[in-house]
Amino acid sequence: MISDFEQILSDSCKGMKRSAIRELLKLTAKPEIISYAGGLPSPDSFPVEELKKIVAEMMETEAASALQYGSTEGDMKLREALVKYYNENENLNITVDNLIITTASQQALDLVAKIFINRGDKVIVGLPSYLGGLSAFNAYGAKMTGVSLDDKGMRADELEKTLAEMKAKGEKPKFIYIIPDFQNPAGITMPLERRKEIIDIAHKYDVLILEDSPYRELRFEGEPQDMLYKTDGTGHVITLGTFSKIFAPGFRIGWVIAHPKVVDKIVMAKQGTDLCTPPFTQRIAARYVESGIMSEKIKDIIELYREKKDIMLDTLEKEMPEVVKWTVPEGGLFLFITLPDYMDAEALFKVAIEENVAFVMGTSFYCNGKGRNTMRLNFSYASKENNRIGIERLAKVIKSQMK
Amino acid sequence: MISDFEQILSDSCKGMKRSAIRELLKLTAKPEIISYAGGLPSPDSFPVEELKKIVAEMMETEAASALQYGSTEGDMKLREALVKYYNENENLNITVDNLIITTASQQALDLVAKIFINRGDKVIVGLPSYLGGLSAFNAYGAKMTGVSLDDKGMRADELEKTLAEMKAKGEKPKFIYIIPDFQNPAGITMPLERRKEIIDIAHKYDVLILEDSPYRELRFEGEPQDMLYKTDGTGHVITLGTFSKIFAPGFRIGWVIAHPKVVDKIVMAKQGTDLCTPPFTQRIAARYVESGIMSEKIKDIIELYREKKDIMLDTLEKEMPEVVKWTVPEGGLFLFITLPDYMDAEALFKVAIEENVAFVMGTSFYCNGKGRNTMRLNFSYASKENNRIGIERLAKVIKSQMK
Repeated sequence: MISDFEQILSDSCKGMKRSAIRELLKLTAKPEIISYAGGLPSPDSFPVEELKKIVAEMMETEAASALQYGSTEGDMKLREALVKYYNENENLNITVDNLIITTASQQALDLVAKIFINRGDKVIVGLPSYLGGLSAFNAYGAKMTGVSLDDKGMRADELEKTLAEMKAKGEKPKFIYIIPDFQNPAGITMPLERRKEIIDIAHKYDVLILEDSPYRELRFEGEPQDMLYKTDGTGHVITLGTFSKIFAPGFRIGWVIAHPKVVDKIVMAKQGTDLCTPPFTQRIAARYVESGIMSEKIKDIIELYREKKDIMLDTLEKEMPEVVKWTVPEGGLFLFITLPDYMDAEALFKVAIEENVAFVMGTSFYCNGKGRNTMRLNFSYASKENNRIGIERLAKVIKSQMK
Repeated sequence: MISDFEQILSDSCKGMKRSAIRELLKLTAKPEIISYAGGLPSPDSFPVEELKKIVAEMMETEAASALQYGSTEGDMKLREALVKYYNENENLNITVDNLIITTASQQALDLVAKIFINRGDKVIVGLPSYLGGLSAFNAYGAKMTGVSLDDKGMRADELEKTLAEMKAKGEKPKFIYIIPDFQNPAGITMPLERRKEIIDIAHKYDVLILEDSPYRELRFEGEPQDMLYKTDGTGHVITLGTFSKIFAPGFRIGWVIAHPKVVDKIVMAKQGTDLCTPPFTQRIAARYVESGIMSEKIKDIIELYREKKDIMLDTLEKEMPEVVKWTVPEGGLFLFITLPDYMDAEALFKVAIEENVAFVMGTSFYCNGKGRNTMRLNFSYASKENNRIGIERLAKVIKSQMK
């Protein structure tokens, strides 16, 4: 090995941190641990039987083209099916020129960062925000500025204040990163009124919004609030979608919806990073969406996760001491717990592991190191029964650490 | 859309060029055109029947895990199968800690660039070199320094001179990019003696080598020359492999073999770019390699491409004017043509398209803008008959432009 290996790494690589969740998951691999740490969908949500048929048909009729290189923009039938889905279900008015397939949302986060961020550029993120977004932006040297959330998502007043302060200094963020539906990690959904405020601010300050919405289709109750992309209507919003939570993460298929100028740059960047997303899985996914089976299957997933979420909420209600607070999500995969100020979720984690229950400490999601007394719980992966038993264990741990 | 869109793009994005080949391929989409421009494997090389069985079995026995998230390092069985393959066939002595799965070689090129290159850093490349490598390095702001090839690949004397000059200036390249087997685009293979010289130079100047070897298994004649990775034996070499030319590009599966320190950094970088390569296709690929079918199938691919190459070479011999020279590849997918100095392959391209034959102009592969009188021909994709007809057309075009 060369003698100066650590020195010749890029600044980007030197600044990379191992994903905290990923490292935690290693600790939680023991079978006796009930882990709420990951963000995995339930294996029960996978359409295995339906896929057997679709895959067999695909192999009979179009294997050769599915095994060949594909276009960087993605499989045309899949793009058309997604365009149809969004125009019909979300009242958008997009064409295939607005949509590019990516190797799931994480690649979309990476490519958006790649086309916009120079080292030292500013990006605005929620406090807290999805850790995979933060690490994608961090890899390109972004300086993150946090804006607090309240119970309606990112605070509009604080966002405007932040942008005004930046403007006064001659600065402008490259984009504002928002997860409007069942936010990861906070489990909060932004109501339409707040969406309009945020969009007005984006227009006023002429700044892009990155709308990350992997859980949008998984709503348990309440009414869907218009996508930021629709509320905007002017090309200020770049929206990310994925099959990871509504179909299968193992396909690694996501997409970007954006102004054609943005799509064009992402295509160029993607060309250099992987040429194209696997045509093999895209052909299967296109058939799955076209068939209408996906829409039906999403209803089953919602029922499954609603039950799991309800069991977790009921157990929290029953077992947790009164000083512990949590969010009640209208959908998605996560809820967020706030402990008394004096408690530290990282210290608690070690005790919890001994009691065979795991979570992610909230600090992982705060670009400013805050959130020490918070934690994220995933309710989609563990069994229903374990969503009760694990919370009982966690309550016991928290009680044992209370002053 | 925001008013200053073009201005807020990253320097990386501003410096990106659309792939010349990709743009050409659009022109060559008309069915009457015989295109030697792409680097596509023949659809006849795809193991469709074998895969039907493997995919059906996989869906029966392990669909749920193949549909879930996987580890960033890649599917363990696939990594083990590849480690076994390299240790048995290439006399390496690697473990799974030396190998990470990537979303084909292009992602490996991107990730290696990401972990090493700061804007302005030097990288040494062959004149010519694979365009996808050049564009991956370019996206991170690398300054490419070209070293000429002779009929044994990258010139050792020129490489040493370049490194000595850099050293005198207190500079060191991040790595030397070499395609030792059936080079793309030149079709040249580096003999063992030259490999040893190059490795000695890398040791002397304490510099990494990036060995890109997508075609290594496709040897028509002659003896395999040790991999640079093996010749080195000290961790100075990072090797890239892929299934794209020996199995199916539509799976987008490749791998990196390197010192565990390098693998570790690539894992961290990959975590932020796509979390993991699709487990679904990795599970299928693992079964395909383990079954031994791949090794058998490669023999068929070699026979298929050897015939196609021979037809192209025979027709070149018969039809081309004497001033036109070409390389005679021992394997791979490409040969490289040198026209008389006064000819310009770009001007020729327009005439060729009118005559319904296409190629890639050599300039695309030269980081210094040279190679105007060269072109790359792919012999794997067109049918045997079209490898004759297309060359007849091309010879006619070249003759028509001769002084």
